[in-house]
Amino acid sequence: MTRTAIGTADTRDAEHSDVTRVAVSTVIFTLRREPGDDCPSLVMPLVRRTRDPHMGLWALPGGWLDISEGLEDAASRTLAETTGLTPSYLEQLYAFGAVDRSPSRVVSIVYWALLRADEVDAQAGGYAAAGTEPENVRWVTVDRLGHLAFDHNEIVDYALWRLRNKVGYSRIAHGLLADTFTLAELREVYEAILGRRLDPANFRRQAENSGSLIPTDDFRTGSHRPARLYRYNQDVELADRGPLDIRPRHESSTS
Amino acid sequence: MTRTAIGTADTRDAEHSDVTRVAVSTVIFTLRREPGDDCPSLVMPLVRRTRDPHMGLWALPGGWLDISEGLEDAASRTLAETTGLTPSYLEQLYAFGAVDRSPSRVVSIVYWALLRADEVDAQAGGYAAAGTEPENVRWVTVDRLGHLAFDHNEIVDYALWRLRNKVGYSRIAHGLLADTFTLAELREVYEAILGRRLDPANFRRQAENSGSLIPTDDFRTGSHRPARLYRYNQDVELADRGPLDIRPRHESSTS
Repeated sequence: MTRTAIGTADTRDAEHSDVTRVAVSTVIFTLRREPGDDCPSLVMPLVRRTRDPHMGLWALPGGWLDISEGLEDAASRTLAETTGLTPSYLEQLYAFGAVDRSPSRVVSIVYWALLRADEVDAQAGGYAAAGTEPENVRWVTVDRLGHLAFDHNEIVDYALWRLRNKVGYSRIAHGLLADTFTLAELREVYEAILGRRLDPANFRRQAENSGSLIPTDDFRTGSHRPARLYRYNQDVELADRGPLDIRPRHESSTS
Repeated sequence: MTRTAIGTADTRDAEHSDVTRVAVSTVIFTLRREPGDDCPSLVMPLVRRTRDPHMGLWALPGGWLDISEGLEDAASRTLAETTGLTPSYLEQLYAFGAVDRSPSRVVSIVYWALLRADEVDAQAGGYAAAGTEPENVRWVTVDRLGHLAFDHNEIVDYALWRLRNKVGYSRIAHGLLADTFTLAELREVYEAILGRRLDPANFRRQAENSGSLIPTDDFRTGSHRPARLYRYNQDVELADRGPLDIRPRHESSTS
């Protein structure tokens, strides 16, 4: 299943070298705590290219837009074909169309989504368990991607910039955390995204004042002293896409 | 010059009905004070379609992406061809690709820009002077667009939503006002964009506290009492596009 979208793409290269073609790619972010790691890291799935151009290099999941499907549907389909992932929604990131970004002329519409680790496990069959990843799919920490195919390093840089600049507390809590979470867990999410440590006291104050968190009566117990669990405030909009949001692709799981 | 891009587009419809083609469109906002109007209104240029589909309807300026030009270059070229406008930069708004948005399959990458009225006059030969507009170009107030071709009403709605939600003080001051301006002029810009009146005292307080305005020693005199002129704070970023900003199309006039 990994090779379908990639193979199709390369077959078409020869047929339509004189036209501009439309492709879709997807940036999926999730958090993954490696055994022994103190903090979780931001990771994303990559797919190895099995044909030229860039055979052997890793690339974002994606493929060609079919003439009879919408842009988001195409991104969703090719993501599922290459990685098995089925996010409840994808958000359009940007259209990349530089003339020299591929040997033939390709405009790529890029989508992105945040996924919780348990969603990834349920959808992709447990990427975290060693040896279960398909041979041509790999989850990589965002600061260790290496040289990707095409302009995909540039695309990831832009996605990270958007994630770091435009995403509010509520959105990240909903996208990467379980329904309830401690403030320390929320802080770890932010530290992973920003790539730096945050002062716990300052973070707690900002989070509590954000209006997007609601304290519950539950506490998480364990090796540390009990920590209160918070939940996401449903009154704060998750991903306001404005008038484009009138036709959701399918029901969102606002659990 | 108005008909070149439109005509080319329609000629190709028959040739490539089995492929997905890429088009570009542009949303240009400016402010225009009609004779006798108390406040300026937000207006945008539309181009009348001279062929099917949607012959006779008004549409956003645009045309087909050439295989040898970048997305922003194509948007810039087709905007100039249809309206004579040459903004110093365009920002990518969104890629529209619904299957049924055109009789043939077309993905439109939409760009947008804010222009000052004096820039429009200099570039397009003075749209405000009655009778000088090309027959197939019209500047229309955004709340009186009527039924546009294709999904262009939806595109304008999205552009307005982005303008109203995401644009900061400094950006609007730079995009729609002269180098120096009074707080009343700045408020009128906001009123035109938001489509409602704002309380002058509240607005003044917020503007002065925004950090994006610098008071000058100059005053505007006229029929009212002298009003201090402000300028835009150059230290506040104009349009932070993140890592995509490393290759500006051409020099920006940060006057």
